[in-house]
Amino acid sequence: MITLKMTLRRMLSERRRSNNKLSRALSSSQIHHASRTTWSPPLVSLDLLDDCSSTFTHSHAAPIQKCTANDNARIIDGRSAAEEIKSSIAIEVSRMKESIGKVPGLAVILVGRGQDSLAYVRNKIMACHEVGFKFSIAELPENCTEEEVCDALSNYNKDASIHGILVQLPLPQHFDAGKILNVLSLEKDVDGFHTLNIGNLAIQGREPLFIPCTAKGCIELLLRSDVEIVGKRAVVIGRSNIVGLPTFLLLQRHHATVSIVHAYSENPEIIAREADILVAAAGVPNLVRGSWLKPGAVVLDVGINPIEDPESEHGYRLIGDVCFKEAVRIASAVTPVPGGVGPMTVAMLLLNTLEAAKRALHFP
Amino acid sequence: MITLKMTLRRMLSERRRSNNKLSRALSSSQIHHASRTTWSPPLVSLDLLDDCSSTFTHSHAAPIQKCTANDNARIIDGRSAAEEIKSSIAIEVSRMKESIGKVPGLAVILVGRGQDSLAYVRNKIMACHEVGFKFSIAELPENCTEEEVCDALSNYNKDASIHGILVQLPLPQHFDAGKILNVLSLEKDVDGFHTLNIGNLAIQGREPLFIPCTAKGCIELLLRSDVEIVGKRAVVIGRSNIVGLPTFLLLQRHHATVSIVHAYSENPEIIAREADILVAAAGVPNLVRGSWLKPGAVVLDVGINPIEDPESEHGYRLIGDVCFKEAVRIASAVTPVPGGVGPMTVAMLLLNTLEAAKRALHFP
Repeated sequence: MITLKMTLRRMLSERRRSNNKLSRALSSSQIHHASRTTWSPPLVSLDLLDDCSSTFTHSHAAPIQKCTANDNARIIDGRSAAEEIKSSIAIEVSRMKESIGKVPGLAVILVGRGQDSLAYVRNKIMACHEVGFKFSIAELPENCTEEEVCDALSNYNKDASIHGILVQLPLPQHFDAGKILNVLSLEKDVDGFHTLNIGNLAIQGREPLFIPCTAKGCIELLLRSDVEIVGKRAVVIGRSNIVGLPTFLLLQRHHATVSIVHAYSENPEIIAREADILVAAAGVPNLVRGSWLKPGAVVLDVGINPIEDPESEHGYRLIGDVCFKEAVRIASAVTPVPGGVGPMTVAMLLLNTLEAAKRALHFP
Repeated sequence: MITLKMTLRRMLSERRRSNNKLSRALSSSQIHHASRTTWSPPLVSLDLLDDCSSTFTHSHAAPIQKCTANDNARIIDGRSAAEEIKSSIAIEVSRMKESIGKVPGLAVILVGRGQDSLAYVRNKIMACHEVGFKFSIAELPENCTEEEVCDALSNYNKDASIHGILVQLPLPQHFDAGKILNVLSLEKDVDGFHTLNIGNLAIQGREPLFIPCTAKGCIELLLRSDVEIVGKRAVVIGRSNIVGLPTFLLLQRHHATVSIVHAYSENPEIIAREADILVAAAGVPNLVRGSWLKPGAVVLDVGINPIEDPESEHGYRLIGDVCFKEAVRIASAVTPVPGGVGPMTVAMLLLNTLEAAKRALHFP
């Protein structure tokens, strides 16, 4: 069987040639810059904050491009923000390696070979390689047992060279995802889906060890784009455990007034139109039309939907949940698909893994 | 020191004389009725529901009184609903006692002697006595250590005659409430505040062992009043860990489109006015005026605020977060304070404790 590992070996060897661009790009002046830019303020402090607004102004705005002369919206460039974050992480990894001879390690458990899952895992492997993380993968067949998945998890739980573990979701339907995720060591739950991490994200005054990556990436983009969150109306479309729920919880911790719209919601477009900040995470291509947007809203499009396109190289292309062409005429800022929230999700996974490694290795 | 136990002994002896009214009130025809009426459908089934609306129509509406000839709103009578639920619980307790010679046991840990806490604990003791539960209390001085509280908790964790334990909140400020609550055995967490219970309430597809009592009481009142929840706009004012957060999570599991308003929210009255169902849990007397309400909204008032009143027996009376006089002219239904959500909270605590006991004793 040609495994994902084998396929990736070739890709990585190609990638290696252009891979040093990151380190070349890093000047000493950037090192100081990087150490203070990459992550949001701690959550507990947010809960206790009396006057929040000042803490949210970042000294550097995220890279934002104007779309075209005819459009109003700024395009929030997630790819570029993610590259910047990865650069900062790469510096930290070098520092760690030089100082204690160790690097952060990420492990992925992949059950079956769903095309989407393979693509996501490939992205993660490449990203780990870019920043200098160790990467390990346990590939299990679609028809494996829950016990086998839990065994693989337990092995990684015990492996001191692995600091972050994720189970690539979705799992085949016959699995109890909750049961499996809770076998995962809380200290290595870099996806942030462990019940205790979600509980601690929900409860005011607590601080989860990890925040789910897409939610964290969304907030990071808002903060880097100098979007005011405190007191603003935010609407999250979609209430998945992976994106909608944690994004709701995180926006609320940043003191937005948040509503969640879902399949049962009546008049979703009216509710969406109330949003100063709209997060679309329904998985429905072009669901959010221009008429769903309040003029001047900031729109984060989490959807990644493949649609047929004979003109593109692979016969399909990716579009978001938001009708981009219409959104750029109404919104004040919008993330593109691809190149918006997607790259930030991977960057946040790396960031969580770096944090996990620092914590485990007592590395400041 | 005159302890709460001693004060209560006298109160209980007085209460005992009129206490048999509950059992007298229970006819055999009510037994069948009781066994199918008291609790909401399981949560996981709600998550998976394709067509929910039909499951939410209760065969019996909750007792609702018309306010006065001039007012529009029905008054949702929480006291009467709570009495009905307690009657059902008392029957279950009798059945348990006859069948296996055991009764549910509830333990409270009380730190310090805050007047509010004392009043709440008194209510709980009386309620336990009414339905035939065993009750135990550990009273600790205000200046006790976290370790002493945890020791008291551990003792109750091990005590097989105790099926539900709660730590009376708020704890003195120097305590880490989260740490203490998590010492509590998950199977005895009848307040539902353990991180795993909150996490499982937040995550779709999971079922927490216990749902926090006020949130559960609110939903129970809506269901008993035949209020449609699915797809409706619900606004929760206040985002406390004890009320606002779990009520948000529970309303969402019942497929409402929910928003949370809090101290940082801009224009809270405009957001409140969008609500078909409004839950006021801010702890601010008369915060919600008539102008905050959508005509025909259903209003649940969780606030219990003492205000000075020289004409009343104790020099004060209790009012809610909602300006009742104005609300009854705009809303379609409203809970009074006192006599609305408050009694339901205690009834739900008893219900959670009964469920805990049944689970522990394998009693069907």
